[in-house]
Amino acid sequence: MPASVSLWPVSGIPEIRSGDPLAEKMLPSLRELAQAGDVLVVTHKIVSKAEGRVVDLTTVEPSEWARQWAEKWKKDARQIEVVLRESAGILRMEHGIIVSRTRHGLVCANAGVDRSNSPGETVCCLPDDPDASARGLSSSLSQSLGFTLPVLISDSFGRAWRIGIINVAIGVAAMDPFTDYRGQDDPHGYPLEASIMGSADAICAAAELVMGKTDGVPAALVRGFDWKPMENPSSKSLIRPLDQDFFR
Amino acid sequence: MPASVSLWPVSGIPEIRSGDPLAEKMLPSLRELAQAGDVLVVTHKIVSKAEGRVVDLTTVEPSEWARQWAEKWKKDARQIEVVLRESAGILRMEHGIIVSRTRHGLVCANAGVDRSNSPGETVCCLPDDPDASARGLSSSLSQSLGFTLPVLISDSFGRAWRIGIINVAIGVAAMDPFTDYRGQDDPHGYPLEASIMGSADAICAAAELVMGKTDGVPAALVRGFDWKPMENPSSKSLIRPLDQDFFR
Repeated sequence: MPASVSLWPVSGIPEIRSGDPLAEKMLPSLRELAQAGDVLVVTHKIVSKAEGRVVDLTTVEPSEWARQWAEKWKKDARQIEVVLRESAGILRMEHGIIVSRTRHGLVCANAGVDRSNSPGETVCCLPDDPDASARGLSSSLSQSLGFTLPVLISDSFGRAWRIGIINVAIGVAAMDPFTDYRGQDDPHGYPLEASIMGSADAICAAAELVMGKTDGVPAALVRGFDWKPMENPSSKSLIRPLDQDFFR
Repeated sequence: MPASVSLWPVSGIPEIRSGDPLAEKMLPSLRELAQAGDVLVVTHKIVSKAEGRVVDLTTVEPSEWARQWAEKWKKDARQIEVVLRESAGILRMEHGIIVSRTRHGLVCANAGVDRSNSPGETVCCLPDDPDASARGLSSSLSQSLGFTLPVLISDSFGRAWRIGIINVAIGVAAMDPFTDYRGQDDPHGYPLEASIMGSADAICAAAELVMGKTDGVPAALVRGFDWKPMENPSSKSLIRPLDQDFFR
């Protein structure tokens, strides 16, 4: 029987501020909890905050266009302005919802710009380079802990055809983001052709079960999943290339 | 600190054949493993098999249209014929890939028709009414075990903008498929407006971490998640209504 997998909330992480050394701030909690073989999932919010990717809305001058659209849909024009700045392209802009492709290539609502869990009149943007953030965390934490700790940076995304947000991996370090069943045979000997599990996304989705939005638990450890080490994984590999995107 | 969540593969379930009483077949394994508070995730394959939703391709006469399309993309015309029969509407049909809306309203590749894990020249379709299947299993198993065991029926779906398949819930019984954060305040007092987690989908995604495609483990128990009982949940609530679907 395959072993069980367990999900552990990482609590005790202090409130993170711009410029904070995130690995150092997380280390005391992880020293108590983390074990060799674990994967660490970190919500992007604390990464963005540590990296100063928080925008004070009182400093934002919205364009006329952002102003008009915000007025029409009763949104904060300054926040809309930030969303537009963070977007490389707009896919849909209807009913007050902006679905855009971020500079990272991620397709999500509001370019990942989020007001919740940010103090005061601020919004939180996605990290500039979430893979680099993940690599930095993984390398620093692995060194301190004495074993390789892969890191996934997560955000909760809406989906094209389904209701409810689900965590996905927007940054990956030290592990293969996929489990590739191709080439293996199923128990009936039929090759599993189109079977590549997005394990990094599945792990992030799982982590949400112990993190919750309101509990203020910004990280989780996933124990018992048989991940494959990888030196330079890229979260870009989890993004469907534009030329394969049927739903632009 | 919130308690941990654990995922347990349910092994020892015998090969399921058409007409098999599925709850009865699963009961010995579950008697050993299941605990009050658990959620049971069952891959749709064994549900479909028990319900006779397996099509022998040697009995299928493909239409001329299915034949031409299959020839162009080097597919099995009989399997394409079954996919078309299972589809209520086609969203995209490009590069040999059919993305359709099933009769249940689910948007997925090949209308959920799958050759893997089916014996011989057969394909496996989705259950006719996955919520009814989940209800039947949950009610029968709960009675035998002496506590309420919510059941989620899962399938692995591709996604519009991301690579890698992820399990989602296509059938739900005895639990609320969502965790609704709306109306709650985050730690900074900002209301979490658009925050409804698709917990049933997250639980199914998590379950895949212990099931695997090739191990032949068709079910998993999820322990420690604080699910909310619900008498008649519907997996339809997880499907984005057509009038909110920006990407038809």
